[in-house]
Amino acid sequence: MSLYRQTLVQQLKMIQNVDRWLDRAVAFAEGKKFDANTLLAARLAPDQFPLGRQVQAVCDNAKVTAARLTGKAPPSHPDTETTIPELKARIATVVAYLGTFTEADFAGAEDRVIELPFAPGMVILGADYAVDMALPNFYFHTTTTYSILRHNGVDLGKRDFLGAAALTPKG
Amino acid sequence: MSLYRQTLVQQLKMIQNVDRWLDRAVAFAEGKKFDANTLLAARLAPDQFPLGRQVQAVCDNAKVTAARLTGKAPPSHPDTETTIPELKARIATVVAYLGTFTEADFAGAEDRVIELPFAPGMVILGADYAVDMALPNFYFHTTTTYSILRHNGVDLGKRDFLGAAALTPKG
Repeated sequence: MSLYRQTLVQQLKMIQNVDRWLDRAVAFAEGKKFDANTLLAARLAPDQFPLGRQVQAVCDNAKVTAARLTGKAPPSHPDTETTIPELKARIATVVAYLGTFTEADFAGAEDRVIELPFAPGMVILGADYAVDMALPNFYFHTTTTYSILRHNGVDLGKRDFLGAAALTPKG
Repeated sequence: MSLYRQTLVQQLKMIQNVDRWLDRAVAFAEGKKFDANTLLAARLAPDQFPLGRQVQAVCDNAKVTAARLTGKAPPSHPDTETTIPELKARIATVVAYLGTFTEADFAGAEDRVIELPFAPGMVILGADYAVDMALPNFYFHTTTTYSILRHNGVDLGKRDFLGAAALTPKG
């Protein structure tokens, strides 16, 4: 199984799930008659990122995973979003960026030597980067996004988290 | 990269991280002079599993991922734990179980046709099961475990979540 399937395909699905969770947050806020954007400042601990920054982190994790594994320079997206529509536009930008990659771009990605801006002087192989860092980080921020919404009463369940899976009828 | 590396090796590391988070919760409770086991009933939403059940889910996800991908029957672990020492014993049991697998056990796992108890009449290929279901579910419960502890004041950070990565000196 290619790293394209393991990372990009799955991250693309999950980030579109996150987009739907934001729609559910908007619907929840409309029902309760409050400004949905107030949720962007909600957080689970005072020294953890709030919801808005979690969604930005989801976007950046997906973006840099694809870029690093394929040796490309990722586009820069300053964290300027302050509303849910702006965050949904940021997600759409990353969805479009991920759509520019093909499985062929990931040829040799497992053995690519990757440098990380936060670990100067160190390197990690693409396969280890994907399994030890990229996916755990990505799921950390998707799950925390989901948890902040659940904690604030938005009606979501595990199926909304996971999205579709490739189940087929038996036999 | 084998599914052994993608799932079992990473899940084994993460479940040992979870074990350390519980130690940190105990130390936090000792400092604050409260019974650490009260944390096991803490939850982020009234209709989401509390901490104790999240840790049990982490254990079960790691266990059934290895069993399903290799065609083995997983051992049964009834959810009877009510204290942190009992949960740490459950984790130790799963760590030992995972230690019985070798990479050779995962030969052909990507193409294994897997049946799931919650989707009668349906099947999924091992590769899709790992990427679409097993890993997202596993990270969902590890991150939620971490988030409940952070929400209750336990001093943890992202490095505690991720654990070690295979970084090496450049050049």
